[in-house]
Amino acid sequence: MQLGRNIEINARGHLEIGGCDTVKLARRFGTPLYVVDEGLVRERCREYQRSLAACWPDFRVAYAGKAFLTMAMCRIMDEEDMWLDVVSGGELYTAVKAGFPPQRILFHGNNKSADELSLALEVGVGRFVCDNFHELQVLARLARRAHARPRVMLRVAPGVDTHTHDYVRTGQVDSKFGFTVGNWDAMVAAQWVLDEPAMVLTGLHSHIGSQLLDTAAFELEAQAMAELVDEIKQETGYQVEELNLGGGLGISYTGQEAPPEVGQYVRALTGVLEKSLDQAGLKRPRLYLEPGRSIVGEAGTTLYTIGAIKHIPGVRTYAMVDGGMVDNPRPALYGAKYRAVVANRARARSNQVVSIAGKCCESGDMLIWDLAVPRIRPGDVLAVFCTGAYNYSMASNYNRLPRPAAVLVGQGEADLIIARERYADLVACDRVPDRLAAGRMPVAAGEGSSS
Amino acid sequence: MQLGRNIEINARGHLEIGGCDTVKLARRFGTPLYVVDEGLVRERCREYQRSLAACWPDFRVAYAGKAFLTMAMCRIMDEEDMWLDVVSGGELYTAVKAGFPPQRILFHGNNKSADELSLALEVGVGRFVCDNFHELQVLARLARRAHARPRVMLRVAPGVDTHTHDYVRTGQVDSKFGFTVGNWDAMVAAQWVLDEPAMVLTGLHSHIGSQLLDTAAFELEAQAMAELVDEIKQETGYQVEELNLGGGLGISYTGQEAPPEVGQYVRALTGVLEKSLDQAGLKRPRLYLEPGRSIVGEAGTTLYTIGAIKHIPGVRTYAMVDGGMVDNPRPALYGAKYRAVVANRARARSNQVVSIAGKCCESGDMLIWDLAVPRIRPGDVLAVFCTGAYNYSMASNYNRLPRPAAVLVGQGEADLIIARERYADLVACDRVPDRLAAGRMPVAAGEGSSS
Repeated sequence: MQLGRNIEINARGHLEIGGCDTVKLARRFGTPLYVVDEGLVRERCREYQRSLAACWPDFRVAYAGKAFLTMAMCRIMDEEDMWLDVVSGGELYTAVKAGFPPQRILFHGNNKSADELSLALEVGVGRFVCDNFHELQVLARLARRAHARPRVMLRVAPGVDTHTHDYVRTGQVDSKFGFTVGNWDAMVAAQWVLDEPAMVLTGLHSHIGSQLLDTAAFELEAQAMAELVDEIKQETGYQVEELNLGGGLGISYTGQEAPPEVGQYVRALTGVLEKSLDQAGLKRPRLYLEPGRSIVGEAGTTLYTIGAIKHIPGVRTYAMVDGGMVDNPRPALYGAKYRAVVANRARARSNQVVSIAGKCCESGDMLIWDLAVPRIRPGDVLAVFCTGAYNYSMASNYNRLPRPAAVLVGQGEADLIIARERYADLVACDRVPDRLAAGRMPVAAGEGSSS
Repeated sequence: MQLGRNIEINARGHLEIGGCDTVKLARRFGTPLYVVDEGLVRERCREYQRSLAACWPDFRVAYAGKAFLTMAMCRIMDEEDMWLDVVSGGELYTAVKAGFPPQRILFHGNNKSADELSLALEVGVGRFVCDNFHELQVLARLARRAHARPRVMLRVAPGVDTHTHDYVRTGQVDSKFGFTVGNWDAMVAAQWVLDEPAMVLTGLHSHIGSQLLDTAAFELEAQAMAELVDEIKQETGYQVEELNLGGGLGISYTGQEAPPEVGQYVRALTGVLEKSLDQAGLKRPRLYLEPGRSIVGEAGTTLYTIGAIKHIPGVRTYAMVDGGMVDNPRPALYGAKYRAVVANRARARSNQVVSIAGKCCESGDMLIWDLAVPRIRPGDVLAVFCTGAYNYSMASNYNRLPRPAAVLVGQGEADLIIARERYADLVACDRVPDRLAAGRMPVAAGEGSSS
């Protein structure tokens, strides 16, 4: 059986993550429960830093917070000396609240509001990654008013097409993101910022897509961006100081995908970049990479409790869990596939195939089709792997289900980093206008049934 | 231009809903903003009740809360003498908290937890719609312990296939929902409940899908269920007293879909049911219908503010709004299509085509492709129609965006029914373990940039 990194089976036959027995975690914290392996998160950060240090001395690694951002994650990223990508005022607020140094924050987003830009100016984020002319204009106006000189990277759409799900493909010409390179917009934007006294241009940012499984697209990106650096130099005389080559390295959700190792990806990308820059006689800018899923995806495991099991002879067996699309919308959104094991019988041989259904009143709420499992029964704990990225961050309260708790595990200890929502939290924003409250009857909590 | 029901354009050329100027609403409550037309919600409830009263005297109409459930909605449903479907402890909690009479609540769900069933027993919900044998066993045990005798409907999978999105198709044999009719499971379940002293069997529930656009599938459902009533009578001697024929009538999102009128749907369904029952010499059970989207879908409109506009010559123009898949995941989930108008220039002639992009850092965050609009600029208010159902209820905090507010409008008045989330709400469940908090540095809110 293939388990994830840092995942073992203990003497009781229970799945163990970061030295914690997952069956005990499920009992202690309840399910659904996100389990985040702190050691693996830190190790992945260091893998990026080591790989870059080996071939591109002036570098920064920024964690793409949209994958999974909580205050505790911000603390870990700070301790690991990472930079941080945020994409909204809410993410920025989270980071600042957690004490993450704002000067190491990059602020992304295709439609930042004036309020968000003001907040970012106020706390002093390190880089504004500006997406479009409207944003440049608003930011310049706010910066002048605040007597600030924000450092700006321009997000460009380099016209690099990638093989990934349409929803997470971002580098093509027809994209909501960034200044188009092909039609001179990127050049105009660069000149615009260079001419704007209220801003400092530090460089360029590109992003070509998410969950990428080979290095080819990254190499094309590096080449395209080196060419743009050259064109900007020739056209404006400005030498780009910082190059932020986004696009997320994929992870192996099912064991079928074979993404390159971090080191291999970094070497391929920097190799092409170096060569392209050298050929044009350009200085090497500081290089930023922005892994998100690649840092936290594999480090996350979701624990569910099996409830009802429905066997339809000759058709299918459904095993139902106490969560689903509410805590992991990726199967419904992208047709994403996942691996899972029965955590309390992790060593048992599989002898049947079941489909894992979520708890929502919706047929689309299926987590895994056709999963090989051993004998399974209500009360079993199911561990679904690689749920660290884009699970909690995309979670909803559909069906008014409370969002799960999350614990950070390592060296046999487990710390709560997200408290489980309570029913009271679900109605916290509900308001009842007086005229509707008037007809309200007192409710007697009684027994069984009536009417 | 096609507007929605009860939607007008006022003398200023602004869109008006329930007598409220939407541009003023956007200014007063901010955007994104869900606007719910109270009059239309109430009118739809009454349309169902009138239609049923005309052809099936013993009926109940239950609002399917998963479409949009807040405490204020529960109050309206109570005032309209509706029953209410809930599908989780959280929905049940909301209803009870709002003073909705529990005896008019039906409790649905394919994987109710023991805690949820206990809560439902405690407050005394009117009907438990039991989905599977596991649930029956758990409920019976809890009921005995509580000396309660819950009233039970059995959810069955009648094997009726419908033409709708796979995710919302529920009546087929291969379904996570309900007791299979074809393999005798439904019959066994009926006998099981009849034999169980701690429960009262009141009838059967079926559900064949959502957003259905013709009456054919409903007619098949009525016929299949009448046959099952007959079989159960013959096999067990038990005459089903209550028949709950679920499956949701569609609405016209784009003006292209042409769902039948409520009256037409009710007549078609009851006509077939009556005939099938009469032929078998069966008494007419009480009939339940469970509209959700059909009650609240058209009554909802989402207001956004246009931010950045990106024109890529020869390719596309993107107009970006301050919300997106976070407040309306249906385009990303189902490829759902929507109509929209520029609310502050609602009478202006369209002279261009733009695509409406959301604010999330994800290419999949597109709300509408190729929308005809007049001249459009940052600050304009965009009104997207038919967002009353499965928008707020499925909303997330992806990218840590706060969820929008909602207002109830009618007769020129607007009342807040959902308060806008604040940044502080986003971190309310975040916890920082002491050992991580230790390294935390004080943050100075400074100017512009650093590092």
